Amino acid sequence: MPQILAQPGPFAFVPPHLALVVIDMQRDFIEPGGFGAALGNDVTPLRAIVPAVRRLIDGFRVAGLMVVHTRECHKSDLSDCPPAKRLRGTPSLRIGDPGPMGRILIAGEPGSDILPALAPLPHEVVIDKPGKGAFYATPLQAALAARGITHLVLAGVTTEVCVQTTMREANDRGYECLLAEDATESYFPRFKRATLEMVRAQGGIVGWTATVDAILDALAGAASLARSS
Amino acid sequence: MPQILAQPGPFAFVPPHLALVVIDMQRDFIEPGGFGAALGNDVTPLRAIVPAVRRLIDGFRVAGLMVVHTRECHKSDLSDCPPAKRLRGTPSLRIGDPGPMGRILIAGEPGSDILPALAPLPHEVVIDKPGKGAFYATPLQAALAARGITHLVLAGVTTEVCVQTTMREANDRGYECLLAEDATESYFPRFKRATLEMVRAQGGIVGWTATVDAILDALAGAASLARSS
Repeated sequence: MPQILAQPGPFAFVPPHLALVVIDMQRDFIEPGGFGAALGNDVTPLRAIVPAVRRLIDGFRVAGLMVVHTRECHKSDLSDCPPAKRLRGTPSLRIGDPGPMGRILIAGEPGSDILPALAPLPHEVVIDKPGKGAFYATPLQAALAARGITHLVLAGVTTEVCVQTTMREANDRGYECLLAEDATESYFPRFKRATLEMVRAQGGIVGWTATVDAILDALAGAASLARSS
Repeated sequence: MPQILAQPGPFAFVPPHLALVVIDMQRDFIEPGGFGAALGNDVTPLRAIVPAVRRLIDGFRVAGLMVVHTRECHKSDLSDCPPAKRLRGTPSLRIGDPGPMGRILIAGEPGSDILPALAPLPHEVVIDKPGKGAFYATPLQAALAARGITHLVLAGVTTEVCVQTTMREANDRGYECLLAEDATESYFPRFKRATLEMVRAQGGIVGWTATVDAILDALAGAASLARSS
């Protein structure tokens, strides 16, 4: 069985059952004027992972494996946005308010789009989610089951919020999960570090972590093995 | 409206809509010979919070507010335990194996019991959960809705695993959540500190944190206000 060189140990997988889930690589979190900036964050560090996320997506596409993209966004009438979420804190712009990239975190507005460099292909699954976790109130689990997916590689932003929440949801649902260390980022470097440590502690209580290089090496190795057999 | 002195700001609540959720204060995580120890952890630090959790439970009981207890445990035939969970890592005892407190993490075995000092009262809701999060595959949300609960105080173990996962699930479902700082504990002090910071960052992106004293002061103040009105 192919393996990814990971922490706390090797991550074994069977290629057709492995999918990549790219979390919330949206303009609203990564470009100035979106929701991330409205919460008071410096969004520029998140741009640095775009090439690594792109390499990961390309690797999964070349291997013919499933790629899923998620977007955190709400319906135009905010009917799927809990008041507790909209009213939380004192952001400069709240969800639904008009901003430089359209209404903040609303489906169909420019800000909710995935970055052009990471745009989904027409046949790829895109999950719009109202929460931080990608499983709650979405068809993600059904989409993965329809393809027989049992193992997930996770990437995207932000590490300790939407990525971690989704990884914990997936782990509870019985998926074997691996977080791509250099294809995820946080507004707070110490929170990213702590999250990577937490998920792989206690023998991988939430899952594994590995570099993009290690993941791509294993995908290439699996493809070579398949060709020679 | 009563308020708890919290971070990142005051936590306002209306007493009948506030519930306490005590996560997994079970012998399997807190006493030697259980699942926590089988994963290689020193379980003794977790005992230190028992008096604080007890004070919190007593405060909610005196105020006539809802108290919910959760237990992480599985059916005797392991039908609700994903293979990925049972086979993860190299614990000295796996879920379902016989240990000093009965079969590890199995409902009805002594190890899955809540500590006697924190035992639920007969009318209190006890949620058995197969995952780290208390909402996935359980009747917790229905039980809270039946009582009109909108605000949660969370306590228990371990901070970055079951408590954090449950708090993130609750936040996605629209609950206003507050984590009791000194009534939660981790096997890893740095993970507890990081989790408290993460949940209240960005204006309380997951919720609030406060001390048990601050919570009890606010409950007492709310009761006094109710008597005088």
